Amino acid sequence: MLLSYKEFLKNAKIILGSQSKGRQGLLNMVDLFKFEVFPSTFEENLDKQLDPLTYVQKTCEGKVINLLETFKQNNQQWDICIFADTVCEINGKIIEKPNTKEDAYNFLKLFSNSLHLVHTSVYVVGKNDKNQIFQLNGVETTEVHFQYLPEQSIQIYVEDESNWKGRAGGYAIQALGNMFIKKINGDYSNVIGLPLPVLDKLMSEIIELLIKKD
Amino acid sequence: MLLSYKEFLKNAKIILGSQSKGRQGLLNMVDLFKFEVFPSTFEENLDKQLDPLTYVQKTCEGKVINLLETFKQNNQQWDICIFADTVCEINGKIIEKPNTKEDAYNFLKLFSNSLHLVHTSVYVVGKNDKNQIFQLNGVETTEVHFQYLPEQSIQIYVEDESNWKGRAGGYAIQALGNMFIKKINGDYSNVIGLPLPVLDKLMSEIIELLIKKD
Repeated sequence: MLLSYKEFLKNAKIILGSQSKGRQGLLNMVDLFKFEVFPSTFEENLDKQLDPLTYVQKTCEGKVINLLETFKQNNQQWDICIFADTVCEINGKIIEKPNTKEDAYNFLKLFSNSLHLVHTSVYVVGKNDKNQIFQLNGVETTEVHFQYLPEQSIQIYVEDESNWKGRAGGYAIQALGNMFIKKINGDYSNVIGLPLPVLDKLMSEIIELLIKKD
Repeated sequence: MLLSYKEFLKNAKIILGSQSKGRQGLLNMVDLFKFEVFPSTFEENLDKQLDPLTYVQKTCEGKVINLLETFKQNNQQWDICIFADTVCEINGKIIEKPNTKEDAYNFLKLFSNSLHLVHTSVYVVGKNDKNQIFQLNGVETTEVHFQYLPEQSIQIYVEDESNWKGRAGGYAIQALGNMFIKKINGDYSNVIGLPLPVLDKLMSEIIELLIKKD
């Protein structure tokens, strides 16, 4: 577990390749290491006919390739980079961030009184002092069960843009959206956008690789 | 849903009868109403041989009776009071807040690589303009599955008192403790100490009773 690598973490330059406030909030919450935010500029426009797990993994991979290339061009210093991408899935269909209030309304209508999945792909990349690069990835899925949402409640909810804008599926479990959720089955942090137990495992393994003496 | 009672909530004097930072954090997070904190002074010392659900319900009831009596004596103004009590259960045994570092260590050792339950009892009490009092209560249970915790990680964790002090079971899911949890089955906010969907339902019903014209 990462708790055992506090000394390493204290001196490492760690980058979060995401501008998601939810992900930043989770890392600040566990407060195990300092990090800087460098969002990737990878366009999230892959073919939505892909299987959702493949889709989320390929999107995350795109972010990795894009940001590491930028870092190379700019001679950016880093030891560990963290990437994630999150999508929702209902009836086999991929649901991403809503673009409009109407999108958000339709997503919540779809989720009401029903079950959807939240998938997050996580990539952790490490670089040792010989400039060798190590990369590990994992994916986490959480079942989210919504209670029945009355028409009026959805309308009031989407009226306030901050409730749905930039949120996969059009809601935030770490805010008012929590009220919609009857139960989850799986990891909670995954629904915010960064499954912490997966990150814990991948980062611990990367650190082991980085500090290994050959 | 409470979202539909925003107008009522704007003008209501709402009291949270708990000093738990987690519960206050949850209410601030959903940000549906303002509230004041008045912890009850009820001593949580009921017989631990009670069935855990009965135990948590009776403890919460004790807080209700205690605080409403204090309010009566002090002519305290209020419209709605919210109360909650949370315990963990493993193998039928009640686990409350650790008193010492050793307690916290032993609880986490017990939870490691295993499943425990978190029970929260919620009471909502409302008073209308004729001084009629209405009271509703509910209880929520969430399954929490811990991953295997290495000895060293537990030791590092309990070293910092803020990780376990005042936390039922000796961990906080809304902080570093999230790393320990492989998955939950049920409501997340319940593990912090206040199941928001239950609160949403009980408060909505109480408000309906308060605004009913006879």
